[in-house]
Amino acid sequence: MRPKILVTNDDGITSRGIAKLVEIAKGFGDVVVVAPNSPQSGMGHALTIEEPLSLYETDIFTQVTAFECSGTPVDCVKLAKNVLFKNDTIDLCLSGINHGSNASINILYSGTVSAAMEASLEGINSIGFSLCDYSHQADFSQAQDHIAQIIDAALNNGLGTAKLLNVNIPKAQKNEINGIKICRQARGNWIERFQEGTNPRGQKYYWLTGEFISEEKDKDTDLWALEHRYISVVPSMWDLTDHESLTTLSHLAS
Amino acid sequence: MRPKILVTNDDGITSRGIAKLVEIAKGFGDVVVVAPNSPQSGMGHALTIEEPLSLYETDIFTQVTAFECSGTPVDCVKLAKNVLFKNDTIDLCLSGINHGSNASINILYSGTVSAAMEASLEGINSIGFSLCDYSHQADFSQAQDHIAQIIDAALNNGLGTAKLLNVNIPKAQKNEINGIKICRQARGNWIERFQEGTNPRGQKYYWLTGEFISEEKDKDTDLWALEHRYISVVPSMWDLTDHESLTTLSHLAS
Repeated sequence: MRPKILVTNDDGITSRGIAKLVEIAKGFGDVVVVAPNSPQSGMGHALTIEEPLSLYETDIFTQVTAFECSGTPVDCVKLAKNVLFKNDTIDLCLSGINHGSNASINILYSGTVSAAMEASLEGINSIGFSLCDYSHQADFSQAQDHIAQIIDAALNNGLGTAKLLNVNIPKAQKNEINGIKICRQARGNWIERFQEGTNPRGQKYYWLTGEFISEEKDKDTDLWALEHRYISVVPSMWDLTDHESLTTLSHLAS
Repeated sequence: MRPKILVTNDDGITSRGIAKLVEIAKGFGDVVVVAPNSPQSGMGHALTIEEPLSLYETDIFTQVTAFECSGTPVDCVKLAKNVLFKNDTIDLCLSGINHGSNASINILYSGTVSAAMEASLEGINSIGFSLCDYSHQADFSQAQDHIAQIIDAALNNGLGTAKLLNVNIPKAQKNEINGIKICRQARGNWIERFQEGTNPRGQKYYWLTGEFISEEKDKDTDLWALEHRYISVVPSMWDLTDHESLTTLSHLAS
């Protein structure tokens, strides 16, 4: 029996990145797409609790069952699991291909990886794919073979003890990519600015912009891998505990 | 000089939880509030990049400078840091008091803790407070002394090597609380259901509901602490790497 593969993203169901991921995934199994009906970049692990969601079938992809959802990426996975698949197994959840990097701390803001995280919490092997190119015209075909290689390995050899991979692909020609590296998440940060302006009603507004700063150069990190034109694969999980600090807080206990 | 304390939340600036937190924080320093102008529960680490934000001063709190913001909890912290405080130091960021638990994996969905996480990424000692009571009429005064104790310790003795604490308070009378425990984040999960219905326009909708299931009973976890009427304090951080799985993925490297 062919594997059942759930595909989602955060850039919305009409983006080029998900079209490429669906095209690749079709070669490996029966694909069902559940993706947001509008761009949801930067939604992190947001979910919708205060309002109801819509879920409509769409024929946007050739020969692939697909649904567009009014919610966040995490909502899409929850709806797929509970309403569409119900008791059917999902063998693999793929999210992306995201337009832009989700390496380092960007995983926290990422709807793409959060959707995959949500599936992993349900025990489903999950992979978030991102291309380090924010352009709407980004060329996802350069990484096609590497993505296929990772999906193939995930389906046929598993993910070791991991349930979730955060995969980032450098902006580079296919023959410039040096390979695939297993890494840890690097420390980085955004230096933000707000563009200030006045809206048509005369009211002040603030619009976020900024640039990302790498704060680690270690060879075992995702930022090092990407800078050296490797595809970075970070096994990721739900645990945000700062384990090393557990023993340094005894003055707070009582 | 009195410490400068930034207060935010995810339930919105008019919620009872933030009113109580502001009241407590006023005893320790100069408080500035920047909080969402509408409820933002479940927004996780979402931020707003596709549209501009508004930020208006409000006199909702007595003798406290306060601003309401159209964005997410994370947006509030970014605006506070970059637009209001600029180069001024923020000594402590407090978020909450959240109406409902943010223990275990709920930290991933939590706007409250994500706001504190955002401040911690900027190097600011930060604490997210949540009361395990979803009621709008929740009584936050029972935990007042314990919250004051934690803020006092944070300002006067620091957070050890931690930058961020996820503090959850059991639903209990003051004299029923057994103390404060430093813990790690437990594994848990939501068993979801979607309430299905038809909206006034005859279209089908899905509305998320569900119940939380504890998957760990170990004594060093936040879920154990809360179940045994301790306040749980989990030092938390930005790293989602599944470190133990790093060595089990060599079949994916190339």
